[in-house]
Amino acid sequence: MKTTLGVGMVGYSFMGAVHSHAWRTVHRVFDVPVEPAMVAVCGRDAAAAQRAAEKFGWQSTETDWRALIARPDIDIVDICTPGSSHAEIAIAALAAGKHVFCEKPLATTVAEAERMATAAAEAQSQGILSMVGFNYRRVPALALARELIREGRLGVIREVRSAYLQDWIADPDFPLVWRLKKEEAGAGALGDIGSHIIDASQFLVGSNIIGVSGLLETFIKERPLGQMTDGLRAESTTGQREMGAVTVDDAALFTARFAGGAIGSFEASRFAVGRKNGMSIEVYGSKGSLVFNFESMNELMFHDHTLDPLEAGFRRILVTEAGHPYLEGWWPPGHVIGYEHTFTNELKDFLDCLASKTPPEPSFADGLQVQRVLEAVETSSDSRSSWTDVKE
Amino acid sequence: MKTTLGVGMVGYSFMGAVHSHAWRTVHRVFDVPVEPAMVAVCGRDAAAAQRAAEKFGWQSTETDWRALIARPDIDIVDICTPGSSHAEIAIAALAAGKHVFCEKPLATTVAEAERMATAAAEAQSQGILSMVGFNYRRVPALALARELIREGRLGVIREVRSAYLQDWIADPDFPLVWRLKKEEAGAGALGDIGSHIIDASQFLVGSNIIGVSGLLETFIKERPLGQMTDGLRAESTTGQREMGAVTVDDAALFTARFAGGAIGSFEASRFAVGRKNGMSIEVYGSKGSLVFNFESMNELMFHDHTLDPLEAGFRRILVTEAGHPYLEGWWPPGHVIGYEHTFTNELKDFLDCLASKTPPEPSFADGLQVQRVLEAVETSSDSRSSWTDVKE
Amino acid sequence: MKTTLGVGMVGYSFMGAVHSHAWRTVHRVFDVPVEPAMVAVCGRDAAAAQRAAEKFGWQSTETDWRALIARPDIDIVDICTPGSSHAEIAIAALAAGKHVFCEKPLATTVAEAERMATAAAEAQSQGILSMVGFNYRRVPALALARELIREGRLGVIREVRSAYLQDWIADPDFPLVWRLKKEEAGAGALGDIGSHIIDASQFLVGSNIIGVSGLLETFIKERPLGQMTDGLRAESTTGQREMGAVTVDDAALFTARFAGGAIGSFEASRFAVGRKNGMSIEVYGSKGSLVFNFESMNELMFHDHTLDPLEAGFRRILVTEAGHPYLEGWWPPGHVIGYEHTFTNELKDFLDCLASKTPPEPSFADGLQVQRVLEAVETSSDSRSSWTDVKE
Amino acid sequence: MKTTLGVGMVGYSFMGAVHSHAWRTVHRVFDVPVEPAMVAVCGRDAAAAQRAAEKFGWQSTETDWRALIARPDIDIVDICTPGSSHAEIAIAALAAGKHVFCEKPLATTVAEAERMATAAAEAQSQGILSMVGFNYRRVPALALARELIREGRLGVIREVRSAYLQDWIADPDFPLVWRLKKEEAGAGALGDIGSHIIDASQFLVGSNIIGVSGLLETFIKERPLGQMTDGLRAESTTGQREMGAVTVDDAALFTARFAGGAIGSFEASRFAVGRKNGMSIEVYGSKGSLVFNFESMNELMFHDHTLDPLEAGFRRILVTEAGHPYLEGWWPPGHVIGYEHTFTNELKDFLDCLASKTPPEPSFADGLQVQRVLEAVETSSDSRSSWTDVKE
Repeated sequence: MKTTLGVGMVGYSFMGAVHSHAWRTVHRVFDVPVEPAMVAVCGRDAAAAQRAAEKFGWQSTETDWRALIARPDIDIVDICTPGSSHAEIAIAALAAGKHVFCEKPLATTVAEAERMATAAAEAQSQGILSMVGFNYRRVPALALARELIREGRLGVIREVRSAYLQDWIADPDFPLVWRLKKEEAGAGALGDIGSHIIDASQFLVGSNIIGVSGLLETFIKERPLGQMTDGLRAESTTGQREMGAVTVDDAALFTARFAGGAIGSFEASRFAVGRKNGMSIEVYGSKGSLVFNFESMNELMFHDHTLDPLEAGFRRILVTEAGHPYLEGWWPPGHVIGYEHTFTNELKDFLDCLASKTPPEPSFADGLQVQRVLEAVETSSDSRSSWTDVKE
Repeated sequence: MKTTLGVGMVGYSFMGAVHSHAWRTVHRVFDVPVEPAMVAVCGRDAAAAQRAAEKFGWQSTETDWRALIARPDIDIVDICTPGSSHAEIAIAALAAGKHVFCEKPLATTVAEAERMATAAAEAQSQGILSMVGFNYRRVPALALARELIREGRLGVIREVRSAYLQDWIADPDFPLVWRLKKEEAGAGALGDIGSHIIDASQFLVGSNIIGVSGLLETFIKERPLGQMTDGLRAESTTGQREMGAVTVDDAALFTARFAGGAIGSFEASRFAVGRKNGMSIEVYGSKGSLVFNFESMNELMFHDHTLDPLEAGFRRILVTEAGHPYLEGWWPPGHVIGYEHTFTNELKDFLDCLASKTPPEPSFADGLQVQRVLEAVETSSDSRSSWTDVKE
Repeated sequence: MKTTLGVGMVGYSFMGAVHSHAWRTVHRVFDVPVEPAMVAVCGRDAAAAQRAAEKFGWQSTETDWRALIARPDIDIVDICTPGSSHAEIAIAALAAGKHVFCEKPLATTVAEAERMATAAAEAQSQGILSMVGFNYRRVPALALARELIREGRLGVIREVRSAYLQDWIADPDFPLVWRLKKEEAGAGALGDIGSHIIDASQFLVGSNIIGVSGLLETFIKERPLGQMTDGLRAESTTGQREMGAVTVDDAALFTARFAGGAIGSFEASRFAVGRKNGMSIEVYGSKGSLVFNFESMNELMFHDHTLDPLEAGFRRILVTEAGHPYLEGWWPPGHVIGYEHTFTNELKDFLDCLASKTPPEPSFADGLQVQRVLEAVETSSDSRSSWTDVKE
Repeated sequence: MKTTLGVGMVGYSFMGAVHSHAWRTVHRVFDVPVEPAMVAVCGRDAAAAQRAAEKFGWQSTETDWRALIARPDIDIVDICTPGSSHAEIAIAALAAGKHVFCEKPLATTVAEAERMATAAAEAQSQGILSMVGFNYRRVPALALARELIREGRLGVIREVRSAYLQDWIADPDFPLVWRLKKEEAGAGALGDIGSHIIDASQFLVGSNIIGVSGLLETFIKERPLGQMTDGLRAESTTGQREMGAVTVDDAALFTARFAGGAIGSFEASRFAVGRKNGMSIEVYGSKGSLVFNFESMNELMFHDHTLDPLEAGFRRILVTEAGHPYLEGWWPPGHVIGYEHTFTNELKDFLDCLASKTPPEPSFADGLQVQRVLEAVETSSDSRSSWTDVKE
């Protein structure tokens, strides 16, 4: 017989909308052993929380996350707030015996992330599980890529070439939203989207980054002050012309070495005009290579270097077959899926782990390690790009 | 204040799963004036219907569509059954005062479609509305294409080049499922997927097909008998080796003339190996052209022939901006959507129409017109491809 | 020891320029058993012929093709004139004992082509060889495609989908050049570019077209009179506003059946705005499929349907390996080639055949067969697209 | 009246073959004010030089480059030898009053390059001109890109993303050819192909690289000894199993800053399996962006960020219009060109400059500046990737 687990979500902006969709959908498409109940959504603005609850289908609201955590009908706390609040909420939730699903990046500093990872490890010994939401691991094409690499189809991995390119703040008049303030966001492009390609590349290669040389740049130093609006597309201008300082990077470049011997090139930017969500990874090994770009997320390009050279080439695998990762829940071949499906896939794995009492991946420890890479990139950038080892 | 309308769905296989998803989602992402309630799902097999209800989130079940139609708590009947039963159910539902949302193709014969269109027209005079589910009209890229054409950006339309290529029955051992029997499906590739590109091309061009020359082919004349299994991926082999005759086309080619003067080339096939859901349309006008392929459904290629020729070229518009059709409900730029979103978008329009008492499009009359094109193609193919006018 | 053969070329416009380039290059990149000497170029306008000789590197000029044919220092006659003069020149040249390389289409009527094929057959019995210049057979990617099909990699060929799309006369003010007059060009898009895809598809499939249903259209019925200017880009407007009738098709659609059982869809158009030289062929078989587009002429897309479906997909073979057809003469992998290389490759084969006394392909008989397909398409179009068998 | 200039070429391997082709072709397709005469080819092996002369069409041979330089019938010396001999030959040729066309990279050390640049400057004051062969500047698509950037269409350039990926030495059994020895080649991937993307990116951006952080890697430290074979595809294995040390980089990554404020990411590798000649550049500015990949060298992708966002997107410009750079010499739209055309285009500019007594670009000074960037990358890589300024 199926069990139902109560979910409480903190935050209801862009990530809150996407997570709501995934909680509503996961048991409708996958055969999961436990079903989620959308018990409560939490936000400081009571009216806005109420609107979010009605819109997204949550049964109740809270305005204080401590109250949410205290509720006995809540088994899972889902954290969708800005990064600076992750540590406090997550640690408290774990202490209260709630499973935690926390959006990425895990935290805004290594110190916070360390405390979170410690709390998660302790909770785990009590059967309380946690996961950090690097959703790109659940893109079917990337999950397939990981399988191919794990099976040795690429041989020895030699080079990783990855970028996450967006353009939403290329306009100097775009306002100073929270994602552009270090105290709330922790980092800029590096933390927000660079963290995704760090996690995804380590996931694919199966080996961690051990050292980096970084170069951060802030092209626009000041922006008009702005206020967040509700909902998904919060980040519009307000017409205000009072200016404030941008305290995070607009673009981040770094080179890296992986423990397994591969070298890597990384780039995260919110100024690459024409790129909307251009998260791309190329992995080159001795026996083959893989290329992925999120804007064509249903496709994985695979070059099998062991084939006759006269017939070899990058093969476009449309990752929509029933046997592909996560596709058992979705549609027939060629009936492509989209962005929010990666979150539904993620929750499927999370629920499977809760039922089987298996620690889900990526763990808070994984999130901490990504945080250490981010910190190393910043440290290197601050010291003339000098090579900087990632702490273990 | 919002009103809730009760929905009863007949059929729960592939289309039933997709429709359920859309009914569950539409009011969560769009601001619709009426909200759907998933009241009942109907299927002849009581246990299977129960499983579908639990899986997809329907409140109750029926095993006789007549009982479903009779329920006072149902305002909308959604028909997801094979084409041969559409006419009877739809006409009865309309007569019972229910709004009807009917999957495509509208029917299996022109005669049935005519009766349905007549019933729909009569019902409409009573405020009862109906719509046929050519969902590709609600692909944002195609909706954008229609806007560009309507605004005259392509000038005079001269040529349409369209294909719908799949490969799921290329294997001669694939069993004789209902889609391969004329009495249930009406037609083969022509009716199932050819109908989509007929509707989509007429929708884009804004002008109907008035004559055709057709060529149908059945490559595999006999197949092992097979039984449908439940759910999305019903059409697997059964191991039976008793053979039955394939009575529909495997592939259909036709040329066409549109009322507005354009000429067109059409191809529907389930034998194009490597093509999974390759529904493509190219439209060439005097001032520009458009290219679309569903396997990259978030993209529209647009060539503006009025630009300086040294700078002109096909432009890949990633149709994910908030201002693009239907995107107000979805995610930020570059965060692509998938197949089932087209159904959610479709229901948004349907609910908007119900609320505003506006006849939705495509209407049953539109569905009838597509049926007449299908019939003309078959007639032409049966008479050595002779040019055959489409009845008006 | 190598032999040198004297070449005389008739015509010096676009094709003349390209052929000159190929004659100048073929022995510089390939190891050919006989070397060409560029002895004379022939044109009615003495001054223009002289300019062409100097520009393209011909040793002398003639103003009468009969004089050219009569020269003892000429062994090969290369015919680059408009189609209406091919028959007379080619038949005379063969009668004079000259090998003939004739541009496509072979002729403007079946009757002419029949006489040419007869003359070629007679000459062949005397050791005098001839070839028609369907240069696309010598695109390395298409030569590789043929090899793959010949080896059975595609299994049974079921469908061919081909188009040749250009846009150079989409502007109604483009003048009435010779290619738009039936008496000189024979046919419009159908003959000029449709003939290429007929030949290429038959070459690939290894089976001839045996019947067709055609639809021809002339969008612009009258155009300003214009005069040809010299050289490559002859076809510019003259400013004259006196109008003349366009007597050929602007676009041609047809469906076809091949002797081997495949069906095909063909489209040739000069009105597909945005398409510059969009010659494309898709071939679908039971075991695999191939896709080619000339605008990316160094690439062949190959789907191997015998692979694990979870790993299958269209593979982009960059046809630039030393072992690929014709590539032994060109550059290292990835160092792509262009349009005129197909002519150089063609002459390599022609010279090889002359040296080995092997009849080259495509022969005049092959050119005649293409002419019969063109005629059948026109006949069908004139009789309401009725199915029309291609004469054997 | 036209003048003819005598050309003497030193070296006859891959580059020699390509240059020969360009010398043979340039005046046949372009209207150049001076025509080249292919007077002599020079190589130490007399028989091989003779074969090259016959094959490529040179009138005579020399076995000592000093003798070549001394010939009065030679006006231009074309240097196609390995980089370590460039300085000696070029300086001597300039001193002898010969115009010099020197393949890239200019030299193997900054010191050599400085002497060459000094010699070139002195010679220039005597009317003797020189040019270094960064042929990618003459890819029409990149020349168009430069024009667009120069006209301000991209606004302020912010980011450059460039890679040159090949895979020809990915196999550890590939022999130790001269390109893998520091004393002959100067550098590995960095010098051979990295120099191309350094030059091309500076050319496009219109601003020099002023500092870098580099990371070099040699994956395969030892390889079987091998001997060069003649001709284009010299670099095959010899079967010898005696091993020698690889003394250059297999892959090079670096980040960079341009004088104008842009930042850049660069990668050169010969281990990126599946990439054959994958030279790519992306340039992101405030008003637009450009993307190029040599494997599709006739295409330039242009995103105009000033367009309505609902219609904007990367536009594929097929750079084959008569009005595009260098295309006046080539074929009609869509009739694509290939690799060696870039050399023919380069020689067109060189000859134009010689005739007009204008210093050609890129100059030896430009070649020296690239050499300084290469040196800075190596210096940085040797000092833990520390930021290293490029000398001015």
